[in-house]
Amino acid sequence: MYHARFQNDPETKMALIVQKYGGTSVGSTDRIKNVAQRIARFQAEGHQVVVVVSAMTGETNRLIALAKEIQTPPNPRELDVVVSTGEQVTIGLLSMALMELGLKARSYTGAQVRILTDDAFTKARILKIDEDRIRQDLNEGHVVVVAGFQGVDASGNITTLGRGGSDTTGVALAAALRADECQIYTDVDGVYTTDPRIVSEARKLDRITFEEMLEMASLGSKVLQIRSVEFAGKYKVKLRVLSSFQDGGEGTLITVEDDNSMEQPIISGIAFNRDEAKLTVLGVPDRPGTAYQILGAVADANIDVDMIIQNVSRDGSADFSFTVNRGEFDKTRAVLEGVKQHIGAKEVLGDKSMCKVSAIGVGMRSHPGVASKMFRALAEEGINIQMISTSEIKISVVIEEKYLELAVRVLHKTFNLDQAA
Amino acid sequence: MYHARFQNDPETKMALIVQKYGGTSVGSTDRIKNVAQRIARFQAEGHQVVVVVSAMTGETNRLIALAKEIQTPPNPRELDVVVSTGEQVTIGLLSMALMELGLKARSYTGAQVRILTDDAFTKARILKIDEDRIRQDLNEGHVVVVAGFQGVDASGNITTLGRGGSDTTGVALAAALRADECQIYTDVDGVYTTDPRIVSEARKLDRITFEEMLEMASLGSKVLQIRSVEFAGKYKVKLRVLSSFQDGGEGTLITVEDDNSMEQPIISGIAFNRDEAKLTVLGVPDRPGTAYQILGAVADANIDVDMIIQNVSRDGSADFSFTVNRGEFDKTRAVLEGVKQHIGAKEVLGDKSMCKVSAIGVGMRSHPGVASKMFRALAEEGINIQMISTSEIKISVVIEEKYLELAVRVLHKTFNLDQAA
Repeated sequence: MYHARFQNDPETKMALIVQKYGGTSVGSTDRIKNVAQRIARFQAEGHQVVVVVSAMTGETNRLIALAKEIQTPPNPRELDVVVSTGEQVTIGLLSMALMELGLKARSYTGAQVRILTDDAFTKARILKIDEDRIRQDLNEGHVVVVAGFQGVDASGNITTLGRGGSDTTGVALAAALRADECQIYTDVDGVYTTDPRIVSEARKLDRITFEEMLEMASLGSKVLQIRSVEFAGKYKVKLRVLSSFQDGGEGTLITVEDDNSMEQPIISGIAFNRDEAKLTVLGVPDRPGTAYQILGAVADANIDVDMIIQNVSRDGSADFSFTVNRGEFDKTRAVLEGVKQHIGAKEVLGDKSMCKVSAIGVGMRSHPGVASKMFRALAEEGINIQMISTSEIKISVVIEEKYLELAVRVLHKTFNLDQAA
Repeated sequence: MYHARFQNDPETKMALIVQKYGGTSVGSTDRIKNVAQRIARFQAEGHQVVVVVSAMTGETNRLIALAKEIQTPPNPRELDVVVSTGEQVTIGLLSMALMELGLKARSYTGAQVRILTDDAFTKARILKIDEDRIRQDLNEGHVVVVAGFQGVDASGNITTLGRGGSDTTGVALAAALRADECQIYTDVDGVYTTDPRIVSEARKLDRITFEEMLEMASLGSKVLQIRSVEFAGKYKVKLRVLSSFQDGGEGTLITVEDDNSMEQPIISGIAFNRDEAKLTVLGVPDRPGTAYQILGAVADANIDVDMIIQNVSRDGSADFSFTVNRGEFDKTRAVLEGVKQHIGAKEVLGDKSMCKVSAIGVGMRSHPGVASKMFRALAEEGINIQMISTSEIKISVVIEEKYLELAVRVLHKTFNLDQAA
């Protein structure tokens, strides 16, 4: 179990910790009992503990499937009524498990806390948390167990925060309670330099900045829900990712950027996204509004566009390329064929077998040579770069999917990520 | 479908109806769709409909089993948090099914309605129902779908009303809304003169009084939860039992007693309870307080006693007999062996194979010969009566279980219950 920090610092010997346990961590009654034992050890050290839990694995999917048997798509208000029961079961069971260990415990649904949200059912945003009742329970020695992923709107309707929203509940509670730390327990023991299934030398990071974590999360690293990271960054909540199945690790601490950026590694990790597809409209007349006409039609069809590139060719027409999720490829292509007629473009090309690989690191702000180093490393392996996109702390390339593993391994090595910082 | 009454009466052409559907009626998504169609037909006739639903069959037991895997017995507050999710799933699904048929529908948990209860978790009693929100929804053309069996205490804790409590929710809502009728849909099409599995001539009753229904319910006729019948009698709610699997029946109407008791049948039904056990303490010293010493010890062991008989014998000592549920027999016997020493009684006897058969009818108030007619009919079949207990509208006998079917058939015929009233 991770606990060194609080014990070693006499000033914060008794801390207020928010712990969040995901669906696999509470996936059976035995696992719920294990979680209770972990919480009990924290309390025994003198800490106050607020626990946020998800629904037991599979439960949310079971409930959504029931709803879809009745209505497609299910009414959002009623779907939230149905789906929110998943977490409600877990809070009751975990509270019982804590009592069985002799602890005082009390469960709260989102509405009971009261976690006030807007009324955007199935994807509500937290507006305000009444923390008085929780604080009173903590002061009376209770472990407080809160249902993640859910809240209540101003009219008393049950809302949910959307998938992965339990992380956001944990961070928002930590912010409201000014907790010393928000610990996200998951089935991995921290954030890695890249996926260890692809690069065996991948190394767990002790620290990562919020910005880097945001880029990692948005690129398909499933450790933390992206909104919870934004939230934590905004409210300066100390966030730590830990394994709920291993004891002793310190996980990965997600922090604000260190002022002394000399000590930052240039690149913190290599992220990737396998399911990319690329579409190109060739010979787009070079006049104002065509980009909007193309992307507007795609947005109207509810398709999310990721990377966008336009380059003007010498004959006064432009080539316009962008990437979408592979599952949207056929739909997007059909939309573009329609747009092509309308704007007088020449041709629509597409390739379903693309992927995106990114090098991420706040250190690249002060190290300008990163991009060229990355492109050279890929070129040396014969990997052709199809699209490039950069931000302050990220360089992404779109390449053919068959090169994905090779590219990730090469970049991991190029930026010395296999060596401890 | 039953609807004649409202249609034929122009004064009440548009009625407010509360309908309650039990677990088997909503046991699958297909059954939920069927329930939605029935509700749609009522609304199409111009009625306002409030629906109370139970958890889907098996769901409550599944949740209780999960809780027991963690804590035995489960903490009552947390058990209510867990178990109340069963009905919450059903209200969401049924509301979706109604919308799928083009109706306006809105679901409410007990807490959302607000069904205020005391804080006796797992067996709470309803104190007050805020009906404003429901009434507003009805006036806007919504079908209102309410979770049965649950409420909320003054501190905002989730409570449940105990098993079968969904009937009580239905009746309490009907009382609060001054509904024209509370319809309880179940898997039988009404209340019968006795169990048709034992007497093939058993006849569905068109009407039964609250008092008779109470006696039937308390004797194991599982059609209605006993507290809901008390509640309906107290608040003069017109209660009707109907089948959710058949259309066209009028079920059984449960009414206040008709003033013109000349038209009442003498006996309305023969009820029975199979799982009885009889215990007798022989030679109890005949001094004040011994009955209390015996029954107090039994009550302390949490054993419910049903029929009690004490007769004083000529040697100045008494024999004390009572019945308990068969499952409690061994435990009760052990308690009595301890008490025997303490009070100086002679012997404890017991018989596990007993049953109770009762003739029930408000008409016996004005017909004094019922008991002797009943005893003679049993005697003619050679059935020995072991204990007798009577109330104003009920005569019960305890007999050996092997005579149960014979006794029920004989009494059903003796009181002409196979002939339409």
